[in-house]
Amino acid sequence: MASLPETIARILRTNPDALIACHVAPDGDCLGASLALAMACERAGVRAVVGSADGVPETYRYLHGSDRIITTPPDHQFSVGVAMECSSLERAGTFAEALTRCSTLINIDHHLSNAGYGNIVYWDTSAAAVGEQVYGIIQAMGTQITPEIAQCLLAAIVTDTGSFRYPNTSPKTLRLAADLVDAGASVHTVVERVYETRSAASLRLIGRALNNLTISADGRIAWTVITPEVLRETGALPEDTTGIVGMLRQVRGVKVALLFEVTPAGIRVGIRSRDAARANVIAETFGGGGHKGAAGFTMPGPLEDVIARTLAAVEKELAGV
Amino acid sequence: MASLPETIARILRTNPDALIACHVAPDGDCLGASLALAMACERAGVRAVVGSADGVPETYRYLHGSDRIITTPPDHQFSVGVAMECSSLERAGTFAEALTRCSTLINIDHHLSNAGYGNIVYWDTSAAAVGEQVYGIIQAMGTQITPEIAQCLLAAIVTDTGSFRYPNTSPKTLRLAADLVDAGASVHTVVERVYETRSAASLRLIGRALNNLTISADGRIAWTVITPEVLRETGALPEDTTGIVGMLRQVRGVKVALLFEVTPAGIRVGIRSRDAARANVIAETFGGGGHKGAAGFTMPGPLEDVIARTLAAVEKELAGV
Repeated sequence: MASLPETIARILRTNPDALIACHVAPDGDCLGASLALAMACERAGVRAVVGSADGVPETYRYLHGSDRIITTPPDHQFSVGVAMECSSLERAGTFAEALTRCSTLINIDHHLSNAGYGNIVYWDTSAAAVGEQVYGIIQAMGTQITPEIAQCLLAAIVTDTGSFRYPNTSPKTLRLAADLVDAGASVHTVVERVYETRSAASLRLIGRALNNLTISADGRIAWTVITPEVLRETGALPEDTTGIVGMLRQVRGVKVALLFEVTPAGIRVGIRSRDAARANVIAETFGGGGHKGAAGFTMPGPLEDVIARTLAAVEKELAGV
Repeated sequence: MASLPETIARILRTNPDALIACHVAPDGDCLGASLALAMACERAGVRAVVGSADGVPETYRYLHGSDRIITTPPDHQFSVGVAMECSSLERAGTFAEALTRCSTLINIDHHLSNAGYGNIVYWDTSAAAVGEQVYGIIQAMGTQITPEIAQCLLAAIVTDTGSFRYPNTSPKTLRLAADLVDAGASVHTVVERVYETRSAASLRLIGRALNNLTISADGRIAWTVITPEVLRETGALPEDTTGIVGMLRQVRGVKVALLFEVTPAGIRVGIRSRDAARANVIAETFGGGGHKGAAGFTMPGPLEDVIARTLAAVEKELAGV
């Protein structure tokens, strides 16, 4: 019996065209995997179009082919649709409907929560990145891994493993990365783009957030606050808060880190935890959600009440661990 | 003819004891490689002692055997001495003299600047970490890579490659890391220790430094200042400044980043550059040195003069690139 990568490779090779759709708010894994698969299709003589409802973030515009990603669903009916890393069809955003119109719908994902839709479901939670899965498909297609394909797949893997820092990094992941470097990709180039191209304003924002760090008396909780005034004074954008709560969790002894952002929609609370503390359990107390190590919720202010109620929920979670 | 790793393996195996000395201010590469080699010697029935003139930084005390590292040179005369990652014998600090008393002195290093001392010089600038070289020696010794040895070697490699982010990361490095994970090591454990265990004071120091960031009018130079007052107010230690100048270099468009630290010895200037700009050329103007991407120097104040003279030297370097 053919493996799933082989089955998908055969379907792609024997159809005239394919629409590959990213999830909304696309990341490097989803974009890199989609672009790599599209390039492999084109090399095999199959017309392939990559769609992203939310476009391409600045960070990933250096990836080969990213300038040809479409943001408006096409009228054309594609024979094959690929939902890339979309836990549900809705995650493809405005491209969901175009995917359902394809004769064959392929669902490729490595997240725990995939809904199992589509004609072919290639769901592998052991993969560190969906780029790992796509690498297998491209190999099964018999397509040469060009330097451009290698760079896109490496971007996928580096993004989803935090450049090999997350626990999902397996020996297989490291060997795959080695193969991609042999094929012409560069880890350093990906890292330069993903981790080393910030605005001065975003660094000043990190500075303000870290300088205002508070640690609980027992040293197990760290938190900081970002107000619209801080954003205005530093010139930073709301998305520049990414990564700050993770930095707070770096403090020795801290089990739960919290970032309180005052936004027009309410107080947005980002939670990161380590060891036995469960971020998702804390978030669920307030109707939010996420993973064990990273979760969040939004609730109305005032700020002081939200901080007090959140800290109480964290204390409760820490009492049980 | 035997390779250098084979020759060193034979010498270690056929002698009764070995003193393995780290360089002063030891890092994870030097410590991890030394501890791994010592464990391999002991498994081969060779008594091995690791010496570090400056002890073991907190970050690396989780490494197996680090509690047995000696900080005072022994009276005992060892048959084999290993200078681990010491560009000159003096870099072994107070252990330099004990190394010279050994019957056979082995010099293992991967830095460009090694002085070539010792009876056996195993100098490999293509190695991303001295841990890569030691891995080859342990393989040549025929010793099993235990989980403890694997973890020490992985700590060496992760430290010197910035967890596979630096350009020195080769396919060989990635495959070696995969082998070490297969042997029982965990990248995540190393990263947790090296990158995710900071003091709250050190985060506040980063906060102050980033918040006071200055960018030149043309956007190509970023700098900040750390004074003794900032250290006092944040409660941070002088070594907590590590990594700050690298963060400044992350700003989009910045070619040269500078950190000015006001210390009792004068103004210490850390330089990081990217693309064609050469940090070492800037540092050499003031009698300092380093690599193309990272260099530094110290000169007397006042601070304003040092900043002005350094910026002039940076402008001169940037004019040529």
